[in-house]
Amino acid sequence: MIKVIKVGGGIIEQEDNLSVFLDSFSKIDGPKVLVHGGGRLATKFAEDLGHKTTMVEGRRVTDKKMLEIVTMVYGGLANKKIVARLQSNGTNALGLSGADGNLITAHKRPVSKIDYGWVGDIDGINTTLLLILLQNNIVPVVAPLSHDGSGNILNTNADTIASEVSKALAKKENTQLILGFELDGVLKDFDDKSSVIKKIDLQSFEELKSQGIISEGMIPKLSNAFNAINAGVSSVRICNALKIGENTGTLISI
Amino acid sequence: MIKVIKVGGGIIEQEDNLSVFLDSFSKIDGPKVLVHGGGRLATKFAEDLGHKTTMVEGRRVTDKKMLEIVTMVYGGLANKKIVARLQSNGTNALGLSGADGNLITAHKRPVSKIDYGWVGDIDGINTTLLLILLQNNIVPVVAPLSHDGSGNILNTNADTIASEVSKALAKKENTQLILGFELDGVLKDFDDKSSVIKKIDLQSFEELKSQGIISEGMIPKLSNAFNAINAGVSSVRICNALKIGENTGTLISI
Repeated sequence: MIKVIKVGGGIIEQEDNLSVFLDSFSKIDGPKVLVHGGGRLATKFAEDLGHKTTMVEGRRVTDKKMLEIVTMVYGGLANKKIVARLQSNGTNALGLSGADGNLITAHKRPVSKIDYGWVGDIDGINTTLLLILLQNNIVPVVAPLSHDGSGNILNTNADTIASEVSKALAKKENTQLILGFELDGVLKDFDDKSSVIKKIDLQSFEELKSQGIISEGMIPKLSNAFNAINAGVSSVRICNALKIGENTGTLISI
Repeated sequence: MIKVIKVGGGIIEQEDNLSVFLDSFSKIDGPKVLVHGGGRLATKFAEDLGHKTTMVEGRRVTDKKMLEIVTMVYGGLANKKIVARLQSNGTNALGLSGADGNLITAHKRPVSKIDYGWVGDIDGINTTLLLILLQNNIVPVVAPLSHDGSGNILNTNADTIASEVSKALAKKENTQLILGFELDGVLKDFDDKSSVIKKIDLQSFEELKSQGIISEGMIPKLSNAFNAINAGVSSVRICNALKIGENTGTLISI
């Protein structure tokens, strides 16, 4: 069983949380792949450089300068910090962007109403590379960057990468997807952080949506999860990144 | 025969030169490892962030902020740009810092007269990782960063990394070291850029030094080269990075 684990930028940017998460991650047995975000780190860094971040419908517009920044911050700063820390935990981590070893091929998102700039929609995942690394007890740590095969890095959402990586691996090996974030799982009542819904299937997802219990931010996350399961991923768990090694959170099934 | 090829930051920071170099590099047959510098890119970036670069005897002092900058610029911006370009040339490149796959272990340089800060002196090279990648037709692209095994990235000179990588690989396989830079080779007369010395052995090195023909900047480069040969590297060539595929420049032998 390969575990594909996604951790968001919100955990990475806080030193204490990052340490707790990485300790927990290191203790997970078996082959595993880490996919990390890093959104707010890039925003902060852009600020330091006097570059304004433009968000449209919650998504970053990636102009040429912002592409440089995310390449540095996601592929350099965040990725190498995570890898160096995992090494100190005895986990043989190896950082990858989508260009490295041709891991994630993508195309620049076509401009319809909105021009997102240098944002990549995924075309393919090089599972051969991931399996070579895993067979050698190396833990791939994937930054949210893809490439277009014509020499350009592209900015790609980490949730989407985690989902696509798990779907591609599921064609070769039994694969589980674990989405770690700041909450303990999908909540029934957002004001009660302990009101975790233990299990959501496709039917209850529709019900929870129609009741307005599952709100805006969670809908794409859950759609991604069902998407992965429909493509052969054995299970998806949405849980607190700080408790990633425990069998807690919300289990998504068909 | 494995070729370890080093290219300096001076080539990387100019788009035209970078393209010529990478086209030339892609055409080199057989297993190869690229080690790149990136010095001036980090200086420029530090300026943009309002951070002052301190150099002592030609070497960068790496304080905490500068370590963040070199991690981003060397491990992120420069490394990923090179990898994405090589991928577009059909070369299956994979970028690595010294932390990735535990490639380069180092210790923080002890403070004697000068405190260089977060600078790493190399303890070991993980040739197993390099050989796994090479056996799978993957071209490792190494950024000038090492790690201390305790969670810290360290800044390490690219010439030193290239030399240590070639020495370590030479213990396993026949290995050649090629040092690419802005000139056509070691020059007899610095004002005549075509006055390349075709061959330097240990005896002529001493003579050229005592005559003052080989000057300050070249002495560590050549010492590194002899060092590599003494450790089993089959040959060292110092040549123009833009002609890296041609058999030109200065050949170093014992």
